[in-house]
Amino acid sequence: MLKVALIGSTGAVGQEFVVALNKHPWFDLTHIVSSERSAGKKYIDAIRDPQSGILKWHNREQVPEYVRDKIVSKIDDIDPKNFDLIFTALESDDAQVIEPKLAQHVPVISTAAAFRYENDVPILIPGINDDHADLLKKQQKERQWKGFIAPLPNCTTTGLAITLKPIIDSFGVKNVFMTSMQALSGAGRSPGVIALDILDNVIPYIPKEEEKVQIETKKILGKYDHSSQEISVNDIKVSCTCTRVPVSDGHTEVVFVETNENTDPSSVKQKMIEFSDKVSIKNLPTAPRDYIVVSDDPTRPQPRVDREINNGMTTVVGRLRKDSVFENGIKYVLLTHNEKMGSAKGAVLLAELLKTKKII
Amino acid sequence: MLKVALIGSTGAVGQEFVVALNKHPWFDLTHIVSSERSAGKKYIDAIRDPQSGILKWHNREQVPEYVRDKIVSKIDDIDPKNFDLIFTALESDDAQVIEPKLAQHVPVISTAAAFRYENDVPILIPGINDDHADLLKKQQKERQWKGFIAPLPNCTTTGLAITLKPIIDSFGVKNVFMTSMQALSGAGRSPGVIALDILDNVIPYIPKEEEKVQIETKKILGKYDHSSQEISVNDIKVSCTCTRVPVSDGHTEVVFVETNENTDPSSVKQKMIEFSDKVSIKNLPTAPRDYIVVSDDPTRPQPRVDREINNGMTTVVGRLRKDSVFENGIKYVLLTHNEKMGSAKGAVLLAELLKTKKII
Amino acid sequence: MLKVALIGSTGAVGQEFVVALNKHPWFDLTHIVSSERSAGKKYIDAIRDPQSGILKWHNREQVPEYVRDKIVSKIDDIDPKNFDLIFTALESDDAQVIEPKLAQHVPVISTAAAFRYENDVPILIPGINDDHADLLKKQQKERQWKGFIAPLPNCTTTGLAITLKPIIDSFGVKNVFMTSMQALSGAGRSPGVIALDILDNVIPYIPKEEEKVQIETKKILGKYDHSSQEISVNDIKVSCTCTRVPVSDGHTEVVFVETNENTDPSSVKQKMIEFSDKVSIKNLPTAPRDYIVVSDDPTRPQPRVDREINNGMTTVVGRLRKDSVFENGIKYVLLTHNEKMGSAKGAVLLAELLKTKKII
Amino acid sequence: MLKVALIGSTGAVGQEFVVALNKHPWFDLTHIVSSERSAGKKYIDAIRDPQSGILKWHNREQVPEYVRDKIVSKIDDIDPKNFDLIFTALESDDAQVIEPKLAQHVPVISTAAAFRYENDVPILIPGINDDHADLLKKQQKERQWKGFIAPLPNCTTTGLAITLKPIIDSFGVKNVFMTSMQALSGAGRSPGVIALDILDNVIPYIPKEEEKVQIETKKILGKYDHSSQEISVNDIKVSCTCTRVPVSDGHTEVVFVETNENTDPSSVKQKMIEFSDKVSIKNLPTAPRDYIVVSDDPTRPQPRVDREINNGMTTVVGRLRKDSVFENGIKYVLLTHNEKMGSAKGAVLLAELLKTKKII
Repeated sequence: MLKVALIGSTGAVGQEFVVALNKHPWFDLTHIVSSERSAGKKYIDAIRDPQSGILKWHNREQVPEYVRDKIVSKIDDIDPKNFDLIFTALESDDAQVIEPKLAQHVPVISTAAAFRYENDVPILIPGINDDHADLLKKQQKERQWKGFIAPLPNCTTTGLAITLKPIIDSFGVKNVFMTSMQALSGAGRSPGVIALDILDNVIPYIPKEEEKVQIETKKILGKYDHSSQEISVNDIKVSCTCTRVPVSDGHTEVVFVETNENTDPSSVKQKMIEFSDKVSIKNLPTAPRDYIVVSDDPTRPQPRVDREINNGMTTVVGRLRKDSVFENGIKYVLLTHNEKMGSAKGAVLLAELLKTKKII
Repeated sequence: MLKVALIGSTGAVGQEFVVALNKHPWFDLTHIVSSERSAGKKYIDAIRDPQSGILKWHNREQVPEYVRDKIVSKIDDIDPKNFDLIFTALESDDAQVIEPKLAQHVPVISTAAAFRYENDVPILIPGINDDHADLLKKQQKERQWKGFIAPLPNCTTTGLAITLKPIIDSFGVKNVFMTSMQALSGAGRSPGVIALDILDNVIPYIPKEEEKVQIETKKILGKYDHSSQEISVNDIKVSCTCTRVPVSDGHTEVVFVETNENTDPSSVKQKMIEFSDKVSIKNLPTAPRDYIVVSDDPTRPQPRVDREINNGMTTVVGRLRKDSVFENGIKYVLLTHNEKMGSAKGAVLLAELLKTKKII
Repeated sequence: MLKVALIGSTGAVGQEFVVALNKHPWFDLTHIVSSERSAGKKYIDAIRDPQSGILKWHNREQVPEYVRDKIVSKIDDIDPKNFDLIFTALESDDAQVIEPKLAQHVPVISTAAAFRYENDVPILIPGINDDHADLLKKQQKERQWKGFIAPLPNCTTTGLAITLKPIIDSFGVKNVFMTSMQALSGAGRSPGVIALDILDNVIPYIPKEEEKVQIETKKILGKYDHSSQEISVNDIKVSCTCTRVPVSDGHTEVVFVETNENTDPSSVKQKMIEFSDKVSIKNLPTAPRDYIVVSDDPTRPQPRVDREINNGMTTVVGRLRKDSVFENGIKYVLLTHNEKMGSAKGAVLLAELLKTKKII
Repeated sequence: MLKVALIGSTGAVGQEFVVALNKHPWFDLTHIVSSERSAGKKYIDAIRDPQSGILKWHNREQVPEYVRDKIVSKIDDIDPKNFDLIFTALESDDAQVIEPKLAQHVPVISTAAAFRYENDVPILIPGINDDHADLLKKQQKERQWKGFIAPLPNCTTTGLAITLKPIIDSFGVKNVFMTSMQALSGAGRSPGVIALDILDNVIPYIPKEEEKVQIETKKILGKYDHSSQEISVNDIKVSCTCTRVPVSDGHTEVVFVETNENTDPSSVKQKMIEFSDKVSIKNLPTAPRDYIVVSDDPTRPQPRVDREINNGMTTVVGRLRKDSVFENGIKYVLLTHNEKMGSAKGAVLLAELLKTKKII
């Protein structure tokens, strides 16, 4: 069992980590860290609203027993050297400061954007670009760290990159147009989206989101050169419009893809299924039974119906059909659970991958 | 005053017509027609649920006084020769049968799809393709009708065609990708969308909608040749994905456009404003103060906030920005009120246009 | 294993039965019955929309394997004598006709209202009025049936009767005011509540619901006289207002109770917990770990947060406090899952109870 | 024209005031006051989000022209002596400090709770307890103020007190049970209710709300003794449960009333209509055409359908029926627009009343 700490344990993503690490066969979450305000309290008390005493727990599952009475530490109280692995669920500004201090001593797996765009930092999706993990060694060496920082992508990038991968591998991809209809939980809870702003409404803008997805997709799908230890970003072009809709969980994305070679829906479906069946991370503890599901029901995927498939770790694709603009093109709709595969549980899956690769 | 009948007066679109024609300066709605079941009743009783007696009235405004006690006729009871103009709000199957019988004698303005795709039938958006109205004369002649059938487009086509028009005129358009997030009222009420199917959800499919938008947009934006009396469809290519979201009224559409010439957001904005300022139908009774509004607020348009601008007759554009895939490209979000400009009120505006053109 | 048939297997409640009986240790669902239209099809095909081929499956869990390929019978094709038990999920009008024919031969457990108000028919909530089951014997004798009809209450009655029971037992109850905020699934799906009617809205009326709750509560909580084999209805008075709110599952009920003896929130809580701990049906296969949960968090119960506790079989109580009008009074809020304890799963629990009582 | 200032002009309630005072025939809003942060800016800039520049305007109507370029003052910059009347839209803590300083010099009409429960402060609903306004004179005298503080009730009290008044006058009222289903706008916007907390949900608790409604209703409906200049609170007993539902605007309240004398629904309806027809404030500029509307449609009132009747100044009653618990009792459902009659527009109506009474 690896000894694990979690930094940022009381927020929405932190709570997802706490659930994802419950009874984990490889990782023992021994220390949970949060802000000064929470330090010294039991976890169950740290997630109470200080004024009303009301529990602020956002997960369907109950607060796991193993963590209820665990005392919350503050960041200065823990010595990173004591851990084999640290998960962080921090705002980007805090991550910028805290994560390098930790990474000097220990591997850090992060959900924050702070380091995603640095040259020696891969953005990893387990099963999609595992070989990019090798870049972590260069990062360690150059920065003279014992650990490293390995960030997940933005939750909206995840499903897009996962579904593009088998298309790229078989047919090549030139151009991608993507419109997202994103869930409320993607905006967090402090305060997140105000109900009055989204009831009976669509908000056609999420600050910085489109740029993140456009850049991250190209990096994740880029080629890693093992000799130069560099990622050359994929030369696909990606254009996004990201919107918020009144849906609690599950990002829906509408995708139009121009491929290099001609293809058709059934071939794309077949390649996606094959990819899913052989995906590298199949046997890891947190991996879903199906990495990608392709539905023939034209009304799917739907967030409320499909987001919990395989505990939110499956990317669901539907409406695969020939595009009517591109000579070689395909269009589809995808659904990804932004708080599961796209966040804490995805991070745990990544840790599992890095462990099997002996990078952790 | 023209003497007007309305066929299909008790449904959701019919109710919109009844409101749109209230105190109209040119059109006197003398006869309202509905199914056998309603015939002989006062309008106010015909829109009651027969079992519970509950009023099934779907408009924010109250039932207008002028129509409350008017007796509903059935279709066989009215003689089309007695009218100067007939509006129809029928299902496509009924329209297929009924509209030609009426059009033998009198101009018919229709919200149904039944005749939209025939060669001698224009699909008219007032202000966009007014010259296509000339095709109605050919239709009359060839079919040996005294009247004609003039259909509106599908409500999802309307905003797309309106916003593409000034771009085409100034910069040319090659390709369009559009993702719609459509309102519940677009699906009607008999039964329409079931609440359990859409609460906390997105449905990524609306039967036949994408094909309609793709075909209609090309036809509406096509060139009309006055000598041959033919529309040559525009050779832009359009690819759509149409989805349903939990919004009551107002279709939001996310658009990516490849232009022929290079352009930039401020030029496109300027052309849209200029087009709006000079639009042909400016002074008609039902025309909005602004045909197109372009917002600089990146969070707009939003359906709940913007759909009632100018009584739902304005198309609102926002998020105009350079596209990141097309070398010459622009992307934006638009909002159109599917039950106002996109339906009954748009039909009344069309009637006004045809009257000023002396086609009615 | 008892041999079981399900009548009305393809609708929303029928689907809940199919899930509730999956891998049941005592009941073997061998025959599923539906309308003529479905007869002869595999279950998986019978629940498809006939036009679009889309699966109309309303449960979070997937269609259970055991039932997918089972052929649907029509009612005339099955011989009730071949079964030990029949569950029905029928509209009231159909139940009126079909259930007596079945009950001549075999016990029928019904979710319909058709027979609830007959003198020789108990309305049974397992754990609350188990002794009323004895009335089924009288019913059998008087009607000369080998079986009987045992209906569940209306789904809105269930939580109210369950929470009143421990209060009556300890303190007596005179008067009850109840306002319900009912979920959409309570209205079914054919067509159920139209999204346009409930989005951003409350509908303050559900036909016949208030009368049902008022009458059923008094009957369920009545005394059963074993010698006369009669239920004397409880003389509490109940007044309800039933409303519909935009919530998918889970009925919330606000209750004000005048008790005979003085009491206080902590005593009521204690009695509810004690009742829950000792409830008769504790060890039945479908029984929840907790029959009643009482929350001290003033923001609970909430339908989205609490409805799935113990798979929807627990009644959750919160906001227990002294009433400010009644000298002896208490008020609280309760939550009951209308499609689980209040419907098919409650019916299976009832069947389990009747089997242990050897009435089946 | 009276010279008027508005304190707290940029928040949600302040914005409602700005709209309510647009083109007002008696009141000239010359000065608008907000926090330090906004002072010195034009109003249109003060209501922008400082980071994004996005307009935070929450009203359906556009920002009125008269106020767009008006410079926002800070509280220390204005001299209360320069005004005939001041409206305040402050949080309770700020009101506690600021309102007395203003009231030394000028009448203050307040939406805050800070002074509602003081003995020399009436809680005024125009049309219901106009004679309580006389208490303001005592307040002035005792506190040696030139002005006074006149607060509105809590927005949930308003509809309850208005509908109880005609029942009390004709039949007497002993006991009232009320369950509210309150709109999101009642919780404000800083941050207000988080969408993730209320989508597909009901929150059965609003801090302090029930106590406010219970106390305020008794005070508003109390008798004013002109000789002693005291309000003796009404001895009706009121018990409330206040909940939040996913509705944008409009509080729905379910009411059970025990009357002193026997009555029936049609008599109560008649008394409500008579009261509405003769209500004192009928001819004031902001008064609605109908003070109370009683609907015979059992599905009404509904917040989305009825909240905008008469610009949100009408209280709508429906489902009037005999109660089934009280020997003398009636039950009904009411709807009140919490941001219009229950807030800023109600405050303007109150100012109009006080002016006609020459108290301002």
